[in-house]
Amino acid sequence: MTAAGERPVGELVVGVLGGTGPQGRGLAVRLASVGQRVLVGSRDDARAREVAASVAGRATAAGGAQASVQGGSNADVAGAADLVVVAVPFDGHAAVLAGLAGPLAGKVVVDCVVPMGFDELGAYAVDVAEGSVAQQAAALLPDSAVVGAFHHVSAVLLEDLSRPTLDGDVLVVGDDRAATDTVQALAGQLPGMRGVYAGRLRNARQVEALTVNLVSVNRRYKAHAGIRVTDV
Amino acid sequence: MTAAGERPVGELVVGVLGGTGPQGRGLAVRLASVGQRVLVGSRDDARAREVAASVAGRATAAGGAQASVQGGSNADVAGAADLVVVAVPFDGHAAVLAGLAGPLAGKVVVDCVVPMGFDELGAYAVDVAEGSVAQQAAALLPDSAVVGAFHHVSAVLLEDLSRPTLDGDVLVVGDDRAATDTVQALAGQLPGMRGVYAGRLRNARQVEALTVNLVSVNRRYKAHAGIRVTDV
Repeated sequence: MTAAGERPVGELVVGVLGGTGPQGRGLAVRLASVGQRVLVGSRDDARAREVAASVAGRATAAGGAQASVQGGSNADVAGAADLVVVAVPFDGHAAVLAGLAGPLAGKVVVDCVVPMGFDELGAYAVDVAEGSVAQQAAALLPDSAVVGAFHHVSAVLLEDLSRPTLDGDVLVVGDDRAATDTVQALAGQLPGMRGVYAGRLRNARQVEALTVNLVSVNRRYKAHAGIRVTDV
Repeated sequence: MTAAGERPVGELVVGVLGGTGPQGRGLAVRLASVGQRVLVGSRDDARAREVAASVAGRATAAGGAQASVQGGSNADVAGAADLVVVAVPFDGHAAVLAGLAGPLAGKVVVDCVVPMGFDELGAYAVDVAEGSVAQQAAALLPDSAVVGAFHHVSAVLLEDLSRPTLDGDVLVVGDDRAATDTVQALAGQLPGMRGVYAGRLRNARQVEALTVNLVSVNRRYKAHAGIRVTDV
């Protein structure tokens, strides 16, 4: 259904909404370091341009070629990108996407937002009325191909370009085969990572929420945990 | 809180409720093949004894030493074992445990039951009123230390003793540190596997439900998928 499926994934311009936050910035700099053209989006477009310049500098230094990274408002990025990653805070997720159904129509939208809360016992998964954050996105973006992915990749490791190879798989969930194929290919652009198809959007909830368990793993083992799928 | 914590895990008698089903039988034969004493439980104690004899024969042939495996009713196994694995079908889970609070008091109870349904679109996660199957067990067994684990280990691979080494981690969730330590150690008895602490019981839901995604992985890739935690 999307233009994204017609070109090699490496040629797509990837927009990151919430690209100034840890997960968004980590994905932006890592993708830019391997040659992907990236647009960093934020509510605050001055902040987005500032982060984009920093990301471009780091990605260029690490990747050896001039990285293409520009910043702008979430709305501008949504309109200009071929494929859009949603990495905004969970509590702003619905509000940000509600205004972007038009610019995101016909595009692959990759949601990596985790519905997570913290209290005195640590992290916990927050219920989402639509079933999952990805399903919330799909409800708000009826003309986009929404895919859930990149929940389990540590922002700290994404940002650390001194380690050129990552260690983990990206679980990709979605109902549109062309879109999940594209997102798997995008994950595969990151050295050491694979995109693994992991089911329909109705099964996004536990993929998102597993991130809560990885927070517990990180606390217990002083790690930046991710996951690998075995026998695949 | 449990007697199980006072002895090396290899000396514990492990009871498996629902030990005649695929996951229970797989765990029973794999544990028996590495020298663990195992009790196979079933609603039908004649069937339990029959499966126990088969498991003992296979484990002995694979392990090189006489395996100790006996069968009996779920109630008898719950009473006789030091540590009990619950591997009954989800739709019988509450009914089986409701009668066993007495014999399971003071014991570590390891729940590996997955709340999963199937329809024309494939597998999906079923809501559990208590939040998760493990929390349902904890509600029914107030004097036991309930731990969630062994959801992601393929029954097919567990049963295939021609492969002595497995490839995967066991995510272990629970609120009692001694109990989760014991279950991690039990997972570590299986060559190639590790028990990895992955949070409190309130975060069991997504660990259980992730098994649904592994079913999708298996279908797409013709695999028997499991998971590894990276950076740990």
